[in-house]
Amino acid sequence: MQHSDILLRDLDGDGILRLTLNDVLRRNALSEAMLSELGAAFAEAGANPSVRVIILAAEGPAFCAGHDLKEMTAGRAAPDRGRAYFTKVMSMCSGVMQAIVNCPKPVIAEVTGIATAAGCQLVASCDLAVAADSAQFSTPGVHIGLFCSTPMVALSRNVSNKHAMEMLLTGDMTPAARAAEIGLVNRVVPAEALREATLEMARKIASKSSMTLATGKRAFYAQREMGLADAYDYASNVMVENMLARDAEEGIGAFIEKRAPQWQDQ
Amino acid sequence: MQHSDILLRDLDGDGILRLTLNDVLRRNALSEAMLSELGAAFAEAGANPSVRVIILAAEGPAFCAGHDLKEMTAGRAAPDRGRAYFTKVMSMCSGVMQAIVNCPKPVIAEVTGIATAAGCQLVASCDLAVAADSAQFSTPGVHIGLFCSTPMVALSRNVSNKHAMEMLLTGDMTPAARAAEIGLVNRVVPAEALREATLEMARKIASKSSMTLATGKRAFYAQREMGLADAYDYASNVMVENMLARDAEEGIGAFIEKRAPQWQDQ
Amino acid sequence: MQHSDILLRDLDGDGILRLTLNDVLRRNALSEAMLSELGAAFAEAGANPSVRVIILAAEGPAFCAGHDLKEMTAGRAAPDRGRAYFTKVMSMCSGVMQAIVNCPKPVIAEVTGIATAAGCQLVASCDLAVAADSAQFSTPGVHIGLFCSTPMVALSRNVSNKHAMEMLLTGDMTPAARAAEIGLVNRVVPAEALREATLEMARKIASKSSMTLATGKRAFYAQREMGLADAYDYASNVMVENMLARDAEEGIGAFIEKRAPQWQDQ
Repeated sequence: MQHSDILLRDLDGDGILRLTLNDVLRRNALSEAMLSELGAAFAEAGANPSVRVIILAAEGPAFCAGHDLKEMTAGRAAPDRGRAYFTKVMSMCSGVMQAIVNCPKPVIAEVTGIATAAGCQLVASCDLAVAADSAQFSTPGVHIGLFCSTPMVALSRNVSNKHAMEMLLTGDMTPAARAAEIGLVNRVVPAEALREATLEMARKIASKSSMTLATGKRAFYAQREMGLADAYDYASNVMVENMLARDAEEGIGAFIEKRAPQWQDQ
Repeated sequence: MQHSDILLRDLDGDGILRLTLNDVLRRNALSEAMLSELGAAFAEAGANPSVRVIILAAEGPAFCAGHDLKEMTAGRAAPDRGRAYFTKVMSMCSGVMQAIVNCPKPVIAEVTGIATAAGCQLVASCDLAVAADSAQFSTPGVHIGLFCSTPMVALSRNVSNKHAMEMLLTGDMTPAARAAEIGLVNRVVPAEALREATLEMARKIASKSSMTLATGKRAFYAQREMGLADAYDYASNVMVENMLARDAEEGIGAFIEKRAPQWQDQ
Repeated sequence: MQHSDILLRDLDGDGILRLTLNDVLRRNALSEAMLSELGAAFAEAGANPSVRVIILAAEGPAFCAGHDLKEMTAGRAAPDRGRAYFTKVMSMCSGVMQAIVNCPKPVIAEVTGIATAAGCQLVASCDLAVAADSAQFSTPGVHIGLFCSTPMVALSRNVSNKHAMEMLLTGDMTPAARAAEIGLVNRVVPAEALREATLEMARKIASKSSMTLATGKRAFYAQREMGLADAYDYASNVMVENMLARDAEEGIGAFIEKRAPQWQDQ
């Protein structure tokens, strides 16, 4: 499969796939083309046993500016005033966000610059996020009459109601340090240390059993939607199956014998 | 409609409605009369196109002390020991809290003093809250044998379980700075700056399209109660309808043309 | 009933039951024996009117190291490779965690040292937690191929998604101060002040009406699983019944008359 250069893909020897948004002139907007690329990239990465962890990074001062408003506006020329087109784009976009959540590999956002609207949603949809101290976040749709209703699905599953509402109702920029305080990103580092800090986190996770990471990630989001008793029934079953898997037997054995484990797919 | 002076109403030229609890001698208790006034005020404000944002403020050292315990106690004289009366008051109170959540206009609490029990619930029920550094919050029902069970519905949808449980089980006062840390209020300012800080936030929001704010607020609370896939289906539809609305077309056009938008209801 | 000395039980004159994990050589692992003891202890404490509040503490440098991996590994010798045994242990463990949540008495974790895996889950399952500044928390299953899938049920109901995922995917230790920031514990004190700080919190809660505490704790976890409207219907009914109970009449009467209340079971 041929890949466009608006999304760079680089898989290193540790199994860390670096996806880089690279449509700098359009501030890495989630154009139809970019959404297609992202959807394909997460699907491929999920199915590729060589990929252990995914970093989602970006070129240029904007991490991602959200939807491509010019492209969206062009859609209004259709006889239905764009309804079919908007429906298609929203479906693609929500699909990409859920593809990140449903991807069996952990996904870490590495946020350099400004992440706005669906760009902020991208960060919120990743399992983890590391931000440069210069990064900023906002859901500014309210400024242009288009409330960030899909971004808030991801945002409100990361930060508390009043914090989410402040971002959504004011459209104000949230600096990186504040984003860390409210739980939108895991940590903030100086811009020059960002790439290494994210890579260190990725390497740590990439050293684990991929089977175990996939099992745990899937179970995490599944149990979050259940009541407590159902969540325990479900997670207890997950634990039993995990105990019976080869990598747990190996990992626990290695721990008891004080040696390094050798995972099945390593 | 004639309004009692226990709830002052002041609508300014920017569309900001200031509701002021003004029953200072009873520490702005949520008496039957006050609940009636609040219920009516939110219903009217919701339906009044001139109202763009609501500030809920208070006169006196107490923002709101919760239910009127003397009035409640008087209800015990009935043959049913107050069951019908308590049921009515709780229903009114829960109705007012949900009227705030369901009101299509954003509601900001401006908290000067002490907000306790259902008074704390009022703050938690607002979309946003700004507090004076002298403000304090508690759910002290446990001191009097009456657990703050309805206040905790709102409280626990704002702060994490252990923080909510600490307030509920100890009944201790939470100072404003701590309330900001745990997510109960958005920000804390010096008491003398409170009114201006709240107004500034309200003005910013009042400058947006009312249609957009109403769409977004309703969608926010609706999607919070759904699983992820359902939330995305729902919010994607909301986005499509929002894109097709006149104010989004105007707002996006203005953004692309680098001019100020003109909202439909302005 | 005879009690093993791996779980010490000490009930003081204020109705504060101190349960102390005391299997120091096994780092207070949740062996079958320990799970049995804990299950029995919470069941008895729940039914014993002399117990008003429970503190869960530990002897030794480890608060609790989670499952007993040697015992689990021995289970692999069975013809079914341990499936029946793992199912039994997971069911016991999830049962103990839910027994804490469902216990009518408030439970406070007093965390001295290291709380890992199901040990971290124990802390997360308690209503409140106080930690020594030397305490540390982790969900390190990922290191040994066994994702902390049941611990995350409790963890993710205390801290935000990204914070939970960081602990789960990296397995890293979270120091006490950070655990307080993310909401896993209520407060951190110097190690030498831990016992007194926890006891002070327990005493404060033990001075309340047990009926009221039981009513409120049950309602708290029940309403957390409901949508807003259902939660208000439910909690409003809880309030009406609570108002009609003897301790609320006494507590409100005492408050109005400015005297100390006398609870029914005191």
